[in-house]
Amino acid sequence: MPVPEAIDALSSLLGDRLSLSKPDLEAHGQSETYFTLTPPDAVAYPNDTQEVSAIVKICAAHGCPVIGWGAGTSLEGHALAVRGGVCVDFSRMNKVLSVNPEDMDVVIQPGLTREELNQELRATGLFFPIDPGANASIGGMTATRASGTTAVRYGTMRDNILALEVVLADGRIIRTGTRARKSSAGYDLTGLFVGSEGTLGLITELTVRLHGQPEAISSAVCAFEDIGAAVETVIQTIQMGVPMARIEFVDTPTVAAVNAYSGTDLPEMPHLMVEFHGSDAGVAEQAERFGEILGENGGTGFRWSTKAEERTKLWDARHKAHWACLASRPGAIALVTDICVPISCLAQAVEETRADIEKASIPGPILGHVGDGNFHAILLVEPGNAAEMEEAKALSNRMVERALALGGTSTGEHGVGVGKLPYMEREHGEAWDVMGQIKRALDPDGIMNPGKMVRGN
Amino acid sequence: MPVPEAIDALSSLLGDRLSLSKPDLEAHGQSETYFTLTPPDAVAYPNDTQEVSAIVKICAAHGCPVIGWGAGTSLEGHALAVRGGVCVDFSRMNKVLSVNPEDMDVVIQPGLTREELNQELRATGLFFPIDPGANASIGGMTATRASGTTAVRYGTMRDNILALEVVLADGRIIRTGTRARKSSAGYDLTGLFVGSEGTLGLITELTVRLHGQPEAISSAVCAFEDIGAAVETVIQTIQMGVPMARIEFVDTPTVAAVNAYSGTDLPEMPHLMVEFHGSDAGVAEQAERFGEILGENGGTGFRWSTKAEERTKLWDARHKAHWACLASRPGAIALVTDICVPISCLAQAVEETRADIEKASIPGPILGHVGDGNFHAILLVEPGNAAEMEEAKALSNRMVERALALGGTSTGEHGVGVGKLPYMEREHGEAWDVMGQIKRALDPDGIMNPGKMVRGN
Repeated sequence: MPVPEAIDALSSLLGDRLSLSKPDLEAHGQSETYFTLTPPDAVAYPNDTQEVSAIVKICAAHGCPVIGWGAGTSLEGHALAVRGGVCVDFSRMNKVLSVNPEDMDVVIQPGLTREELNQELRATGLFFPIDPGANASIGGMTATRASGTTAVRYGTMRDNILALEVVLADGRIIRTGTRARKSSAGYDLTGLFVGSEGTLGLITELTVRLHGQPEAISSAVCAFEDIGAAVETVIQTIQMGVPMARIEFVDTPTVAAVNAYSGTDLPEMPHLMVEFHGSDAGVAEQAERFGEILGENGGTGFRWSTKAEERTKLWDARHKAHWACLASRPGAIALVTDICVPISCLAQAVEETRADIEKASIPGPILGHVGDGNFHAILLVEPGNAAEMEEAKALSNRMVERALALGGTSTGEHGVGVGKLPYMEREHGEAWDVMGQIKRALDPDGIMNPGKMVRGN
Repeated sequence: MPVPEAIDALSSLLGDRLSLSKPDLEAHGQSETYFTLTPPDAVAYPNDTQEVSAIVKICAAHGCPVIGWGAGTSLEGHALAVRGGVCVDFSRMNKVLSVNPEDMDVVIQPGLTREELNQELRATGLFFPIDPGANASIGGMTATRASGTTAVRYGTMRDNILALEVVLADGRIIRTGTRARKSSAGYDLTGLFVGSEGTLGLITELTVRLHGQPEAISSAVCAFEDIGAAVETVIQTIQMGVPMARIEFVDTPTVAAVNAYSGTDLPEMPHLMVEFHGSDAGVAEQAERFGEILGENGGTGFRWSTKAEERTKLWDARHKAHWACLASRPGAIALVTDICVPISCLAQAVEETRADIEKASIPGPILGHVGDGNFHAILLVEPGNAAEMEEAKALSNRMVERALALGGTSTGEHGVGVGKLPYMEREHGEAWDVMGQIKRALDPDGIMNPGKMVRGN
């Protein structure tokens, strides 16, 4: 076994910052969703990049798996230690290294969470807009190419990472990208590491793009008779060039769950929740235009506001929708799906999914980032009920097949991890082999988060 | 020699669509700038992806270099056949394959130029915004990660390519990405091929993101006493969240050249030229806000207009600035530089460059996409004057060193090609070796555009 030898050497390096305690191992072997507990053999808590490099060199020398860990909010089991090994927990590497207001960027360590970053930025007039819901670490969000409710305006992590420092599988430390806003100088290594889920290297420093805090924000909510009318409203709004900052769809079961959980009183119908960022005049104009478009599509109950209190209540309810759905079936665990399709196919994809779930014995509220064509069904399963879990997996499987048949993807923002690995060949065809070629070139011994991402790893 | 055998086989495959004529070879061995004529041994004109695959398989079997060719507008000698071989000219693969207005995307072949694409899109209300000036092919723009005057609003090619079909070095045909707006499904191969300059494969089909034609456009021009005031205006405008579609800087020598060439009457001072896209009210508000900011920074002669005629005249003059600069020294050839720095360092970078050029014996007007921190000096050299060319190269070298010292890049949008290859190690350090590892993994025999991009290739 290579692992005990690596642990001995790591223990000398890190002292009590190498943990072998059972609760700690188990805390790093769980996920927020339905996967089985899969703990690592040890958890390392490095203080800096040089230590990360030293850890990886020791693991490389012994052929010991290395798995990165941010805030543990992944939904696809990215950090499960399926081959054992050492989990590298970045919680001590959570500093803001420099804030550059004129350049609208910030250099940070990977363990910093998005809420911590925005707290640090409060006085600068700038903010980090990517909002996946959970208070994830920025390193983890980068490694999974996360996005969330604001991607329709601000893009995904792919669009907001300017440069990275990465420790490779042999312990080499490289820097990708620069602080320039754009570059044509060679292969986009920054983009390659974003979304690589710790299988090519460990991210130890990030240069992150920031945005100006909007001068004004307006938000609106409205109900629709059916999903098609809601989606048609979204398409027309985008085509009109109205720059939405968020546009979220919640179906009837989600609305019911949110009303019960957050004390809102939305009619139990499909809804869109929208937010606009801009100048005072701009956000008013945008909300009014949106009102016209939804009126033409039969939307009702349209209300918009720039008042912080009303906005906060609305988006707080949306942010808690995941927990509201969980609470709607007390004790349940969730299998959260994450397909993304071309927006012209979105109504069909949501309607077929809705109909499929109606026929099942388990509940599955649907909500999503419809401006991107991305939505989730939160399939609620009784713990230990194998038949229900089978049913949830079958529903999820049909969603993925549906997304791929419509020209979409198995995962819009949650990543591959353990949950979507079975679909990689189906989604990418021979391009999956190219991913394997890149993996083997950069990690020939397969120590970086093994058992994930590529064929036969 | 492997090439003659490959040419025999290609001749059987392509008939008269394999050209060996000297004028054709020379047309494919020249560049728009100062590089020496470097023709290939043959030019192939494939009709479709299957033929491209067959061409690459033949070349792979004989170890013959393969070089892609779009519209020949590259400024860094990307397509020069430095090891000979077969140039694959995509001019026959220039079709629009499908327009998807609801999804705001289009599927095209690589030989289509950006102006042809926008012509095709005219009736749809959509457009392809990336504007490098030249009427480049979209395949070539993708291969070099081009951008131009609108990147500050619409991003670069990296941000506007959703999916690719690529023929690899062994002739395999892969598809990267999907038509979904975002995905977390594995390594970003699309992003890897964007900017890879034909060294990893040949792009044979592209799914390109489109944008809504703006309802209204306003543009403005104003003069500044010095570069610092102009740049400070840009920084403040971006920080205020005013969404500029273009913001261009032209220095005094460029203004003089433009006035002479295009008959404009701008005062001979540094200028900013700006364009806003949005609703009628939005573009008026944006132009007015910009007017307030520049007023605080001592800007003068501010004029803005939404009239198409005035806008067209202004941007036509800007678009012809390259030719205006060339015409300012009759008979000269240009060495065009392309550095990009963090915007906080932009004034310093431009001022030091300006001062450096003033000391030289050759003229070098400066203009740039200042919203991105990217600018060009157009160094004008008498053909055949070796001393002047040495001087231009030394100026260019000092610009790159200055950009790298300021945390920027040697090339913001023109790419590496032959011209920037000497700076790759300096810019990327050990990350350049990682590019080499990826190159060798995907093209072990080094037949794809050899002599470019990576070490020892």
